[in-house]
Amino acid sequence: MTVLGWRWPLAAVRSPQAKPAAPARKLPTPPVRVGLLGCGTVGTGVVRLLRANAQSIADKVGRPVEIARVLVRSPERRRDAELPEGLLTADPGAVLDASDIQVVVEVMGGVDPALGYIVRALRTGKSVVTANKDVMAEYGREVFAAAERGHADIFFEASVGGGIPIIRSLKESLAGNRIRRIAGILNGTTNFILSRMSRDGCSFEDALVEAQRLGYAEADPSSDVDGWDAARKLAILSSIAYMARLRPGDVERQGIAAVTARDIGHGERMGWALKLLAISEVDGGRVSMRVHPTFVPRQHPLAHVNDAFNAIYVQGDAIGEAMFYGRGAGSLPTASAVVGDLIDAARFIDRGGKGLTCTCFYRVKRLPPGLVASRFYVRLMAADRPGVLAQIAGALGRCGVNIESVVQTPAAAYQPEEPSDELERAELVLVTHRVAEGRMRRSLELLRRLQAVSRVAAAIRIAPEDL
Amino acid sequence: MTVLGWRWPLAAVRSPQAKPAAPARKLPTPPVRVGLLGCGTVGTGVVRLLRANAQSIADKVGRPVEIARVLVRSPERRRDAELPEGLLTADPGAVLDASDIQVVVEVMGGVDPALGYIVRALRTGKSVVTANKDVMAEYGREVFAAAERGHADIFFEASVGGGIPIIRSLKESLAGNRIRRIAGILNGTTNFILSRMSRDGCSFEDALVEAQRLGYAEADPSSDVDGWDAARKLAILSSIAYMARLRPGDVERQGIAAVTARDIGHGERMGWALKLLAISEVDGGRVSMRVHPTFVPRQHPLAHVNDAFNAIYVQGDAIGEAMFYGRGAGSLPTASAVVGDLIDAARFIDRGGKGLTCTCFYRVKRLPPGLVASRFYVRLMAADRPGVLAQIAGALGRCGVNIESVVQTPAAAYQPEEPSDELERAELVLVTHRVAEGRMRRSLELLRRLQAVSRVAAAIRIAPEDL
Repeated sequence: MTVLGWRWPLAAVRSPQAKPAAPARKLPTPPVRVGLLGCGTVGTGVVRLLRANAQSIADKVGRPVEIARVLVRSPERRRDAELPEGLLTADPGAVLDASDIQVVVEVMGGVDPALGYIVRALRTGKSVVTANKDVMAEYGREVFAAAERGHADIFFEASVGGGIPIIRSLKESLAGNRIRRIAGILNGTTNFILSRMSRDGCSFEDALVEAQRLGYAEADPSSDVDGWDAARKLAILSSIAYMARLRPGDVERQGIAAVTARDIGHGERMGWALKLLAISEVDGGRVSMRVHPTFVPRQHPLAHVNDAFNAIYVQGDAIGEAMFYGRGAGSLPTASAVVGDLIDAARFIDRGGKGLTCTCFYRVKRLPPGLVASRFYVRLMAADRPGVLAQIAGALGRCGVNIESVVQTPAAAYQPEEPSDELERAELVLVTHRVAEGRMRRSLELLRRLQAVSRVAAAIRIAPEDL
Repeated sequence: MTVLGWRWPLAAVRSPQAKPAAPARKLPTPPVRVGLLGCGTVGTGVVRLLRANAQSIADKVGRPVEIARVLVRSPERRRDAELPEGLLTADPGAVLDASDIQVVVEVMGGVDPALGYIVRALRTGKSVVTANKDVMAEYGREVFAAAERGHADIFFEASVGGGIPIIRSLKESLAGNRIRRIAGILNGTTNFILSRMSRDGCSFEDALVEAQRLGYAEADPSSDVDGWDAARKLAILSSIAYMARLRPGDVERQGIAAVTARDIGHGERMGWALKLLAISEVDGGRVSMRVHPTFVPRQHPLAHVNDAFNAIYVQGDAIGEAMFYGRGAGSLPTASAVVGDLIDAARFIDRGGKGLTCTCFYRVKRLPPGLVASRFYVRLMAADRPGVLAQIAGALGRCGVNIESVVQTPAAAYQPEEPSDELERAELVLVTHRVAEGRMRRSLELLRRLQAVSRVAAAIRIAPEDL
């Protein structure tokens, strides 16, 4: 059939040649024994995955991988994870000091007591796989030092982007590059909320309630919504990318709580999607790191990352650009990263470690936040009378802010957002050329002092042109 | 400024704490010496990258990495690569038998003589980094056996997707998954041509000429356009994903030479983008592998991969879905993958190899191509008279093909494509429900035999619903 155009091979049903099954499976090799710290959402996923794919994991490692003990707070509680009798313990020493455990998997989360356990395990020569972004973002140096001292390995793929292989890709596959920029959608909760607001035009509050109902957002959503979670992950990625120890506290943060469906709608008509981007970049030897709502042009692959998905866009001198996309959270996606690391840790235990090493060789200067330049989308509520636009343009001009475009909603078409807006009846949307953050701040202060301007309703950064 | 919403940190300009530069740089460690086989587009990129990022590469490896010798056909020819005097040689033995060379980088391409060189280097204990998809797709088993015998490492990230870290991600980060499907845009040339046809409505021939002018397509474009290149890459990825040796010859292929801008346009109006997808999947323990033009729904991330970019979409039992996106070819992107591998090979040479190992443990059965099911888009030229649609629907029904929708272009609106179409004046676009390939072929044969049907102008598969 020429329309379909297949070339039908001669022996379509022939099974491909393969060497006989690896002998490793047949040998009575002792299993690699794993101690699990924590058995919540991620821990349960790890238990499930190790059981479901036991054979192929054993083949890849060269011997079986089995869970030997599980540290939990209440061993007597019923759990989802199907574990043999007698594995649960409330005594950390039963995992950390057990001489028959070679690899420790830490999936408790939080700094205390996880950090202490990780360091203790590494120092005594146990390799550690962790999903802990708090520990790795704040205490990466201490953790790597403990690994060095114990000749053990530390793996932490699951700490950023759930199952997305970004840590290892930056550490290994992209290691020949000088990384110039990372721009990531690193928090699934906020991406879900923004996608929802964009699709249904609902308010931030309604979208948040929906996210909580679906289990995407915590009862206290601050860590997600205010950008803390993304800041920690950005610090981990940036430390690897720029080979310097960078901390979450050095990340400028702006959350999404003030975002309105109205601004998302305006942005969409201008060809943009609104995303909470975590951006770090090196310019003239200085690093800037920031998390903020950002308008991304529709042609950009990040613009199409919706719902609870994560994506990390990397720009480097050799690779040009690359993007990694997937589920950034959840039991099995995170367990995918943990088990991938565990397989590697298990393959390396007989060789004294060194799967991943610390690469924070350098010091870097930070670009002062006031000097970080962006294009801005600014929405103002102003009086609808002659001369107002001139006043506004004048205030911006005095601060050196160059206007790229202005859209004024005709009075007739304008639907007031707040009662105080009704008297004014004019909504102005400005787009600026690239301007330093500090100048923009000063110009917005001037605008607010203008009598004709009742409200600066929004000021949202637009993604860099060379993203 | 609350609108911008930054929390300005107390010490904004404080440079982040960092440990002093790694002592490794200061020690008089001997360099890792690399033999380069080939110095064309990719080789030149490797030389440039090793020079540009020499310091950070040395820091990561623990000692400098230097090119010791370069095998080329004509050492006297002028080249773009800036190399010290005396490195070029036309004698393979000067690289392969040199006791002072620890790692061999093969960037010549083609099976002969590259395969012989790779095997010879590995057997004598030299680790090898290769960008060679032909060798890895057809002779993976022989190459891994040689690596095993020589206690050396083989790395081949650059063989698929240029700089995109897909090999390592499948081998390591996703190793805990049972992979269910891979769907990739693995050939940049054809993706450029299809993007061009979609954007400008130009013909395949014109887009091909443009691709050739820009250096994306070869003078003989068959390897790209007919899907050979994508088939080889799909065989490599599938062998890793399904842990079984799968060959390019087992991949069903259909190229893009018969694709028309008209069908792309119809697809777009139905919400799809046309891509040359390389798909492999496991269903009921049987594997199918195929490369063919495919309509992808606009909501899917693969639909937004345009121009010469590549992307690989992976579905697994734990990860759910993940996508890897980037430049699939070119001097520096490919060199990025080669140098990433080289850094790893250099880190491992003192440890007797085993960075990547062969994981083709299993045999798999192939799903006979006639049983692979898809939804189809079918375009027919038919007589514009009563009863014709009933005849067509009847022919399809007899083969068990279920019609999902029919669009008939009104006679007035129809612009004939070929002179013979003019008399008929009716263009019918059908979309079928999921149907096995074999049934579809039979039904298309029946349609062509109908007197009322002058031409089956196109039959294009639609991406699986669960992609």
